[in-house]
Amino acid sequence: MERVLHTDVSSHAGETITITGWLHKKRLLGGLNFLSVRDRSGVTQILVEKGDEIEKLRGLQIGTILSITGTVVPDERAPGGAELHDVTLDVQVPVLEESPIEIDKPLSHKPEHLDTLFENRVLGLRNLQERAVFEIQALITRTVRAYLDELSFTEIRTPKLLAEATEGGAEVFKLDYFGKTATLAQSPQFYKQMMVGVFERVYEIAPVYRAEPSATTRHMTEYISIDAELGFIDLADLRTLLSGLLNRVVNDVWSSYEPELKRWNATRPLLAEEIPVISMAEIHERYTKATGTSTIGEKDLRPDEERWICDYTKKNLGSEAVFVSEWPASEMKFYHKKNEQNGEIADRVDLLFRGVEITTGSMRENRYDIVVDQLQALAHGDPSDAGFAPLLGAMKYGMPPHGGFGMGLERLTQKILGFNNVKEASLFPRDINRLTP
Amino acid sequence: MERVLHTDVSSHAGETITITGWLHKKRLLGGLNFLSVRDRSGVTQILVEKGDEIEKLRGLQIGTILSITGTVVPDERAPGGAELHDVTLDVQVPVLEESPIEIDKPLSHKPEHLDTLFENRVLGLRNLQERAVFEIQALITRTVRAYLDELSFTEIRTPKLLAEATEGGAEVFKLDYFGKTATLAQSPQFYKQMMVGVFERVYEIAPVYRAEPSATTRHMTEYISIDAELGFIDLADLRTLLSGLLNRVVNDVWSSYEPELKRWNATRPLLAEEIPVISMAEIHERYTKATGTSTIGEKDLRPDEERWICDYTKKNLGSEAVFVSEWPASEMKFYHKKNEQNGEIADRVDLLFRGVEITTGSMRENRYDIVVDQLQALAHGDPSDAGFAPLLGAMKYGMPPHGGFGMGLERLTQKILGFNNVKEASLFPRDINRLTP
Repeated sequence: MERVLHTDVSSHAGETITITGWLHKKRLLGGLNFLSVRDRSGVTQILVEKGDEIEKLRGLQIGTILSITGTVVPDERAPGGAELHDVTLDVQVPVLEESPIEIDKPLSHKPEHLDTLFENRVLGLRNLQERAVFEIQALITRTVRAYLDELSFTEIRTPKLLAEATEGGAEVFKLDYFGKTATLAQSPQFYKQMMVGVFERVYEIAPVYRAEPSATTRHMTEYISIDAELGFIDLADLRTLLSGLLNRVVNDVWSSYEPELKRWNATRPLLAEEIPVISMAEIHERYTKATGTSTIGEKDLRPDEERWICDYTKKNLGSEAVFVSEWPASEMKFYHKKNEQNGEIADRVDLLFRGVEITTGSMRENRYDIVVDQLQALAHGDPSDAGFAPLLGAMKYGMPPHGGFGMGLERLTQKILGFNNVKEASLFPRDINRLTP
Repeated sequence: MERVLHTDVSSHAGETITITGWLHKKRLLGGLNFLSVRDRSGVTQILVEKGDEIEKLRGLQIGTILSITGTVVPDERAPGGAELHDVTLDVQVPVLEESPIEIDKPLSHKPEHLDTLFENRVLGLRNLQERAVFEIQALITRTVRAYLDELSFTEIRTPKLLAEATEGGAEVFKLDYFGKTATLAQSPQFYKQMMVGVFERVYEIAPVYRAEPSATTRHMTEYISIDAELGFIDLADLRTLLSGLLNRVVNDVWSSYEPELKRWNATRPLLAEEIPVISMAEIHERYTKATGTSTIGEKDLRPDEERWICDYTKKNLGSEAVFVSEWPASEMKFYHKKNEQNGEIADRVDLLFRGVEITTGSMRENRYDIVVDQLQALAHGDPSDAGFAPLLGAMKYGMPPHGGFGMGLERLTQKILGFNNVKEASLFPRDINRLTP
């Protein structure tokens, strides 16, 4: 194909080339007509002086597919640093109806306009600034995989159709499965643990489902979960893994997409190379002292406290991310591990980033007898249930100390871009009110 | 961590090192005891001569987690080319019960034993040969992504929860969605087409769902679909893309996993660099002439014909893969494109590999008016349906000629390994009879 990508146009100064793409914008000023044409790489500006060429566009709208042959003229003011002049237009696919939205400007992301944003996703994503959000998201995924692949993790694919809900019964989608009931996976938690027994280090990046009945800025019914799990480690190894991961993602994204991020008014996150660790008790103490609102003794962080501690570490420790350690054992899930020295706390760290938790990392109880006890005591579960038996089987026949984390891809994207609502970071978000487009 | 991976043991000849892992096998011969220990990289053989060391394993079973310190002694007969001698054993997690299956030998893949294979997946995958299947699968995925990334495709994530079934109504899972009905995506077909309007070249590797009521060797209710779609191309470009992809996958897999593939009795596929193309009519003719069974005029290939033509191209054209071209237009889906020169055929190629179709590639109808007509004529669809409107909207506001394909990751893995049943290439297969483990 002799087609030149738009990002390569400026390297053909003086030559006659052919580009193709979508008519992105037009300014018809009589003798001096400017077209912008878009392809996957970017936008090229085209000057059309001849009346019979511009006449070919009569009645045609934004989105029309064009092939354009012309001479490359360097021009610093043009996007990409060059324009096409003396062009011949070839209309490949005409668009006759005017687009319901302007492609050249991003749609509003104000909370009251989000429904319009999502309704118009198919066309709205053709805007270059909006498109960049999901190019950035693709890079985040690529970076996460590269980071884990280098550490010899194996990528796995676990089923999303399950016989029973494994974690938490309430927010589970149920479906008819040939006369039986199946549920949709809320997390690959048990499968990734079992697969530590096989591959030692595993990850999966795949959809998970939550029948979340509330319409909030933080919840979707379907999202992409980045799940990793690894054996022969302790909690400090897990922190090191997560520190490295977040730093790597931020570095890769900012070195590839700085102009696009700035267009969204995103700022480069301050991150310590080793993300600082503060215990929950210490956060309660500092927060209480600073705000006058006492949270001492509470078993979780309040949303305002999460924001406050991230501000605090940003100012004082140069990091917009912080690990919260020493979670109360009373709050732990049955497969979590208690601290060996202090049975009152769980071996868990939450990673807060820019005011919200982006992941919970924890060590898992790998000793068969203890996890059976915890299942019965903490989850009132039956060890012989088909939903629990495979996990317990893995423990019974040998599992090393292991731990892992799950992180929402959309939430991570959201926090890097500075969006208010996680759905802005989903191509086609799903919530209680939205199943289309 | 001072732990040495098992694949690195032989590079420490003469040194005292520590390894960790699962007790994989033991042969207690009195004074001369051999242990095999497994980690994510492989297996190390350990010689235990001292009685008080071997005494530590009394009553402990395969799967026990060990840390072993000893001296590296090169030995060509040992796996990895070295053994550990003069060892000190440290039992980290004891296993007290005998494993229900032997880890050291792969479970049978005979058709009548597959249920046992799948029931015992959690432990059965700990076998090195079985584990290799999914290491190979992870590499296939990595290779596919690398190939598409290099061609500037963008990875996308499209929803699996849909308001309506978009393609084919029968084999769709339905679920209660807050009092409404949602369906599970059978394919990202429409979304990937819409996203060509945004990114021009897109791919997704994600689960899809088919309420397939039959228990066959070819069908699962959940599988991983490799979907790609790209614009500004023709059918020949699609063939080039698929030829390159299959060659790349086979090369990468065989250069990394030749010993493992041979252990499964897999043979390296013969592949032409440009996979040959034969029209359906020609296949019918050749098959009829060769077998005496006439298929002339039929609108599809019979399963036996698919096997026959792959054998034929293997012998005569040096390729176990072949494109079948010139499919009858009467069989096409509404979003497929008819050939411009010959309205009787569709712009579609099926890629057969080792006797079965591994993907259907086709050009899509990108002209709004025509696709609306085809929707009404071929699928009796209503263009204003929420299921169709977004796709049609993309066409209405400008879509270039485009096409793509969808390929099951498990089926591709199956054909490379030479398995009879696609489920053997799924970590935790799902079909009409199986929702566990």
